[in-house]
Amino acid sequence: MRTFRLVIACPDRVGIVAKVSNFLASHNGWITEASHHSDNLSGWFFMRHEIRADSLPFGIEALREEFAPIAQEFSMNWRITDTAQKKRVVLMASRESHCLADLLHRWHSDELDCEISCVISNHNDLRSMVEWHGIPYYHVPVDPQNKQPAFAEVSRLVKQHEAEVVVLARYMQILPPDLCSEYAHKVINIHHSFLPSFVGAKPYHQASMRGVKLIGATCHYVTEELDAGPIIEQDVVRVSHSDSIEDMVRFGRDVEKMVLARGLRYHLEDRVLVHGNKTVVF
Amino acid sequence: MRTFRLVIACPDRVGIVAKVSNFLASHNGWITEASHHSDNLSGWFFMRHEIRADSLPFGIEALREEFAPIAQEFSMNWRITDTAQKKRVVLMASRESHCLADLLHRWHSDELDCEISCVISNHNDLRSMVEWHGIPYYHVPVDPQNKQPAFAEVSRLVKQHEAEVVVLARYMQILPPDLCSEYAHKVINIHHSFLPSFVGAKPYHQASMRGVKLIGATCHYVTEELDAGPIIEQDVVRVSHSDSIEDMVRFGRDVEKMVLARGLRYHLEDRVLVHGNKTVVF
Amino acid sequence: MRTFRLVIACPDRVGIVAKVSNFLASHNGWITEASHHSDNLSGWFFMRHEIRADSLPFGIEALREEFAPIAQEFSMNWRITDTAQKKRVVLMASRESHCLADLLHRWHSDELDCEISCVISNHNDLRSMVEWHGIPYYHVPVDPQNKQPAFAEVSRLVKQHEAEVVVLARYMQILPPDLCSEYAHKVINIHHSFLPSFVGAKPYHQASMRGVKLIGATCHYVTEELDAGPIIEQDVVRVSHSDSIEDMVRFGRDVEKMVLARGLRYHLEDRVLVHGNKTVVF
Amino acid sequence: MRTFRLVIACPDRVGIVAKVSNFLASHNGWITEASHHSDNLSGWFFMRHEIRADSLPFGIEALREEFAPIAQEFSMNWRITDTAQKKRVVLMASRESHCLADLLHRWHSDELDCEISCVISNHNDLRSMVEWHGIPYYHVPVDPQNKQPAFAEVSRLVKQHEAEVVVLARYMQILPPDLCSEYAHKVINIHHSFLPSFVGAKPYHQASMRGVKLIGATCHYVTEELDAGPIIEQDVVRVSHSDSIEDMVRFGRDVEKMVLARGLRYHLEDRVLVHGNKTVVF
Repeated sequence: MRTFRLVIACPDRVGIVAKVSNFLASHNGWITEASHHSDNLSGWFFMRHEIRADSLPFGIEALREEFAPIAQEFSMNWRITDTAQKKRVVLMASRESHCLADLLHRWHSDELDCEISCVISNHNDLRSMVEWHGIPYYHVPVDPQNKQPAFAEVSRLVKQHEAEVVVLARYMQILPPDLCSEYAHKVINIHHSFLPSFVGAKPYHQASMRGVKLIGATCHYVTEELDAGPIIEQDVVRVSHSDSIEDMVRFGRDVEKMVLARGLRYHLEDRVLVHGNKTVVF
Repeated sequence: MRTFRLVIACPDRVGIVAKVSNFLASHNGWITEASHHSDNLSGWFFMRHEIRADSLPFGIEALREEFAPIAQEFSMNWRITDTAQKKRVVLMASRESHCLADLLHRWHSDELDCEISCVISNHNDLRSMVEWHGIPYYHVPVDPQNKQPAFAEVSRLVKQHEAEVVVLARYMQILPPDLCSEYAHKVINIHHSFLPSFVGAKPYHQASMRGVKLIGATCHYVTEELDAGPIIEQDVVRVSHSDSIEDMVRFGRDVEKMVLARGLRYHLEDRVLVHGNKTVVF
Repeated sequence: MRTFRLVIACPDRVGIVAKVSNFLASHNGWITEASHHSDNLSGWFFMRHEIRADSLPFGIEALREEFAPIAQEFSMNWRITDTAQKKRVVLMASRESHCLADLLHRWHSDELDCEISCVISNHNDLRSMVEWHGIPYYHVPVDPQNKQPAFAEVSRLVKQHEAEVVVLARYMQILPPDLCSEYAHKVINIHHSFLPSFVGAKPYHQASMRGVKLIGATCHYVTEELDAGPIIEQDVVRVSHSDSIEDMVRFGRDVEKMVLARGLRYHLEDRVLVHGNKTVVF
Repeated sequence: MRTFRLVIACPDRVGIVAKVSNFLASHNGWITEASHHSDNLSGWFFMRHEIRADSLPFGIEALREEFAPIAQEFSMNWRITDTAQKKRVVLMASRESHCLADLLHRWHSDELDCEISCVISNHNDLRSMVEWHGIPYYHVPVDPQNKQPAFAEVSRLVKQHEAEVVVLARYMQILPPDLCSEYAHKVINIHHSFLPSFVGAKPYHQASMRGVKLIGATCHYVTEELDAGPIIEQDVVRVSHSDSIEDMVRFGRDVEKMVLARGLRYHLEDRVLVHGNKTVVF
């Protein structure tokens, strides 16, 4: 069922819901899902509606035009998306396959509603798996002494494929700041710890050294500061003294892939609204 | 902060949200929380609004009067409650103290927003604990050969205290059908299993015999059919072969009291809408 | 690191641990993992040791011979396995790919220590995915009017591949009793509910109708009675009124594949000891 | 059932289990629970046995004497405790009652096997609740300008009551270093975050600012470095954008009291072995 998604963030005040609901009702819009949130700390209001496309008397362009005056009146950050327009996603991976294989399988079995434009990797290991899915695979090695050419090529490929979302599926390289800012809130990373604990490299080793009883994973938007961007989703799994670092890595893989898949899904469904360094996830 | 809660269930159609939002906006109502749900299977729509009382130009009676025509237009089941009117709760318990102690402590530390009118028990064991909290304690023994007099007395006490909610905090007796139907959707029970598994007596023994790897608890409204009423909340905890039935009982106590406290809280905050044998919990 | 696994179940009495530990120490056995359990209800004792193969002065056959008198003395059910001998596994699937893809990926990335001899399916849908992994795929259609020939063929294939474990990865067909009893405690099924709730067909529909707040999956050994065999592993995930049956199915897939992968792993590592209708999982 | 608990940590080598098992078997010791752990990173071995007291031909003193040569041979850190000798516990609290009330109720209903010698608080708020349980309450105010006298008094009371365990049940004051080192691995704290995230004050505010999707609590031994001691137990609970800091505090209370109760229980049952900054929890 094709729907339009109206996603709004604006300063809170009386009458927003009424105005928007009236607008939709006046055009006979059939709302299949509605979510609101008033953030008391910031004084902002967030709203997401999902509306059956076939219930409206016009298409998405007219809908945008009709809605624009309301958006202006309430100083809204807003967007309307169309589920018939699948988002183009570029996946980036390194050598470890679990997150990539998981996303590819979900996409292959129609669980993830997107187009996967290509996979970019700094290694060639996962080519066959990716190509079996009929997806182009680009091997862009990263020279540790001079990373710039590789990232220029990554940037070119991302642009060429008109990516709307970039997913770092355990890519293991830090993106350069200009790429982060150009694709702000569009690059999704999975970090293999329960952030803000254990930023940076080898988080399972850090976790083992600290003797924690739960390990986790965090899906977040990439910003220029390492592992510090807005968090979309997190989860944890219990470990004990009897689990070696290898065991933690193994348990962690399952958490990582689940958390990344959930986070990406929320993003693809336009459920994530970023405000400052926090997210509203409807 | 005093709020009014407008809770609605009605057949779904276009324009309900707009109508209600308009109504609230036209009176300058400041909505602090709003939740909607369209149930595709039944074709019903459910809605809950929390509105700051001081944002409206009139009191709850006028609010009800003003809203009544809308309710009629859309054939709504509806109610408006006032957080300044705490619900009167009667707690019923037997010998085990964990659920009762938990609820009393939450109430005592202002976590549960209600009035606890009295505690009724078929045993005298918990009197001192209850009376320390300044709450009347009624010992109503149940004669296994002739339970009717006891339940008549229970019924009388519930009426005398004008109870709006009755909580069976491990009461261990089956209420007679007339009491169940008189207080439909107002009697809350905690069953010590993950229903519908292990209905009836000694669920931890049943769970141990079946060799399950998780045990649970279920908070539900009491209906005439044993342990079959609408479920409000459930949770589970992991067990293993090394856990004896006594261990299960101990783990289970923690799940029971958490699940009951959450379920009761949802009810007190008018978050639970019953439809058939299912609940919407906003 | 190659290890031998000594797995024992016997009537409990004083001195078992001492006898076994002495035996291992007298041969200089380096124990990397040891687990015990005394079951008070049944009076049985369960034990599992993992011993470095290179710490012993002889091979597995001599180890078995040396140990046999102790086993006889204590009337033990016992086995010694060798991690160098990977278990041969036959996977069975129907049309849904999530469990099969998950197991294949874990095997492909060396997370599951076994040999996958072949995949048998009553449909042809998953052939390409399986064959990409270099694993033979047998399409054995099941005629609903006459299932016997199909199961005869399944039985023949299982025998031909000398399967030590058969995994029903959402196979969706009920195995005939003779196959169940011939491979007792060797056929592992994933049922898509938190058993004993919702035995049989369409458990997510059953769960939705009952209005439960958690759905789950159960990995168990197959016995002649449907969905009633010894449980190896279970887990659950939270759902709410806003989740449709389709959402439940989607959430459930993640639980199913995790629970099945964990259950199979325990089995492959000789961690599961069956006693009556219950399991000890070390 | 009275048991002795033999708890051992020593450098790992072949023959420890055999020696200890033999020793116990030679005296006809009935082992009700046994746990082992070999830590590969440190090369240490950890073991805990629970033995029925009535199965041995002598008392605890003779048991210790008989075992001492083995302990010496293997350079063991070891202790033997007797469940008939309940540990003396001093509880410390501030104004918040949830952890204290929870521990008192568990003790009162015989779930925590210890003696509660007294409660020490820097406020007088919880006196009545404590005294209802028949436990002495000491109000020791802490002067923020000069904390030394208060901690001298705390130290005196702890000594006077011959405390074996001190529990900081949301005490909200930092103990002086000399008290920490004098009672090393005997002072148990509950920190209201998932350490190592959010050390120090107002962790729920820190968590809210960071936008995490799970909040937690950590039970740990107190060391001189703030919130950095060996972790005994941790757990988390899911939060979302719709939860205010007040909601987090409320959810957190339930996690805190569960985690503290579990951690204390493990300690009282001699299940926690500290090695460096990590714990083995059998």
